Amino acid sequence: MSLSKSDIKLIKSLHQKKFRNEYRQFIVEGEKCVNELLHSDYEIIHLYHTHEWENKSNNIQKTPVSINELQRLSTLNTANKVLALVKQKDTTFIKYVDEKISLCLYDIKDPGNLGTIIRVADWFGIKNIYLSENSVEVYNPKCVQASMGSLFRVNCRYGAVENIFSDAKKNQSKVVAATLEGINLYQYRKPEKTLLVMGSESHGLSPDILNLCDEQITIPSYGQAESLNVAIATGIICAEWMKG
Amino acid sequence: MSLSKSDIKLIKSLHQKKFRNEYRQFIVEGEKCVNELLHSDYEIIHLYHTHEWENKSNNIQKTPVSINELQRLSTLNTANKVLALVKQKDTTFIKYVDEKISLCLYDIKDPGNLGTIIRVADWFGIKNIYLSENSVEVYNPKCVQASMGSLFRVNCRYGAVENIFSDAKKNQSKVVAATLEGINLYQYRKPEKTLLVMGSESHGLSPDILNLCDEQITIPSYGQAESLNVAIATGIICAEWMKG
Repeated sequence: MSLSKSDIKLIKSLHQKKFRNEYRQFIVEGEKCVNELLHSDYEIIHLYHTHEWENKSNNIQKTPVSINELQRLSTLNTANKVLALVKQKDTTFIKYVDEKISLCLYDIKDPGNLGTIIRVADWFGIKNIYLSENSVEVYNPKCVQASMGSLFRVNCRYGAVENIFSDAKKNQSKVVAATLEGINLYQYRKPEKTLLVMGSESHGLSPDILNLCDEQITIPSYGQAESLNVAIATGIICAEWMKG
Repeated sequence: MSLSKSDIKLIKSLHQKKFRNEYRQFIVEGEKCVNELLHSDYEIIHLYHTHEWENKSNNIQKTPVSINELQRLSTLNTANKVLALVKQKDTTFIKYVDEKISLCLYDIKDPGNLGTIIRVADWFGIKNIYLSENSVEVYNPKCVQASMGSLFRVNCRYGAVENIFSDAKKNQSKVVAATLEGINLYQYRKPEKTLLVMGSESHGLSPDILNLCDEQITIPSYGQAESLNVAIATGIICAEWMKG
């Protein structure tokens, strides 16, 4: 079996959001990410790999390709051994899952930030991330890459934040927003169950959204930067929440 | 005064490391970053701006340009009102400056990570970052962009880590490495003065480097991700160090 023109066309189309949405498929690249994928419950449609790739998959359809062919399919500057064609999961918000802490991301636009936040969640054992409908999609290749395989373990759901918040509150979770004018993170008494809300890179959280939140917290600053990167702020708050 | 071919050639050459090194100049883009630059002690050689830009500079040479001209000069997908041509500062490590906490970055390769770490340092009032000689350069446009202007307030110096470590120790600083097998960050008794060492994205810190460090600390994990992004880890540790 070798690489056909229609394979190339399909995979290259998945570099674009439009076709990812249409086909409900996405691509995963590189040894590390594909190995994590193989241990997940995602459905792999096909693998394209160079002879260098150490095959750890059984009954999955595969096509061996040259490094030049792989580069043609790749979204990376330097293609890395293997590329998987994968079925998307349904990411529609249905119901809030009760946990010690979950994340809600409001209009996050940078796929690298989203992937990094998913990796943070996975490090701290946070299982659920809720996203506003205008947030960047989790199946964006840059997000998949930045998550370093954590995407396959963290449940990501998109919905109207009003619904997510009210569902969280019904589940006795406090809706806590990270802002620049909240209670000092280290003086704040953490609730038993929290939905931590992080705002967009450029606009943070609007007054309307903040009105729906129960409380606001802030990471104290000792310097002059106007703000922290959203993934950094998420990491710092999650670390403080999880340490006990 | 209008945009000349030689202006375009010079500025486009500064998209590349080779010419940044040769000319000892770099570019700063966008309203936010240029405004921070104007408040810094960096020497601005020239400003290129569209009519939209609200001029806050006095005796600096400027050229008004069209948005299309600005886009030709830009490293961004969407050029943003203004671009500055700036003199680099000398970034050679000379001596260790005594502070409560400083950062040492070992072979960091991703300019976005470096810029984000500089922003973290600035948020927490950390004044000095030392970098191994093989680390990415601070004047890389992606680093400048990710630092969101913090680059102009944080002192970055490149040198041999052996020299940086020994100089830090002479100044009674403990050299503390962030690794995956150190003391739990929250159980660790923080020294009075610390040089915090962060390893590269792909290889962390080599045994040789670790041998030169006094201690190792780790951010406790509660999930399954193999590691945290280096900028996230830096943020979490700095937050814990600074909170008192």
